Amino acid sequence: VDDRLAPTPAPPYTAVIFTSVRSAGDDGAYATMAAAMEHLGASQPGFLGIESVRDPVTRLGITVSYWRTEADALAWRDVAEHLGAQRLGRERWYAAYRVRVATVHRSARHPER
Amino acid sequence: VDDRLAPTPAPPYTAVIFTSVRSAGDDGAYATMAAAMEHLGASQPGFLGIESVRDPVTRLGITVSYWRTEADALAWRDVAEHLGAQRLGRERWYAAYRVRVATVHRSARHPER
Repeated sequence: VDDRLAPTPAPPYTAVIFTSVRSAGDDGAYATMAAAMEHLGASQPGFLGIESVRDPVTRLGITVSYWRTEADALAWRDVAEHLGAQRLGRERWYAAYRVRVATVHRSARHPER
Repeated sequence: VDDRLAPTPAPPYTAVIFTSVRSAGDDGAYATMAAAMEHLGASQPGFLGIESVRDPVTRLGITVSYWRTEADALAWRDVAEHLGAQRLGRERWYAAYRVRVATVHRSARHPER
């Protein structure tokens, strides 16, 4: 098992798909905040796991976080420190992003166990 | 608008979240097949868009494809050329992967238009 793939349970559960394009510059401050938010997010009720990749050249990134319920995901959206990070994201760090909240209905894996 | 972010409509629609770890080597054959499958997938009924990133160092990748309905996504899973690519994926290219099929319920974006 590769620990960069999230150990999610049998469906249903909630996925938050965050896709973003990082603006030029400010990489140090961004990395610090991203690590802090990943750490804080992992301590929230209902957190199941996270998968995250950013291409350092194109600056396109995809982060998927998994939650027991949609209410758990929305509660994390509204945590004060996270709201502050979201504001900095809109003002400084992201040229564009999409957030999509989804219910996972079925899953498959390789290897199978 | 950044064209690396998929131009999805108002929810609901289906997301297929594919997260994978590429094995070492065979990068040329893999890139050729990945491009062919991205091209063929985009021609299928119900295809809405795709977002895809792989970190060349960690070899972790996330690809999210978006579909009008879950039936459209499952039909693409079962297209013969795609089944062949999936088999090569399991046998040669992926140390591990997860596929999760989800219904998107809500979305947000930046900038707002």
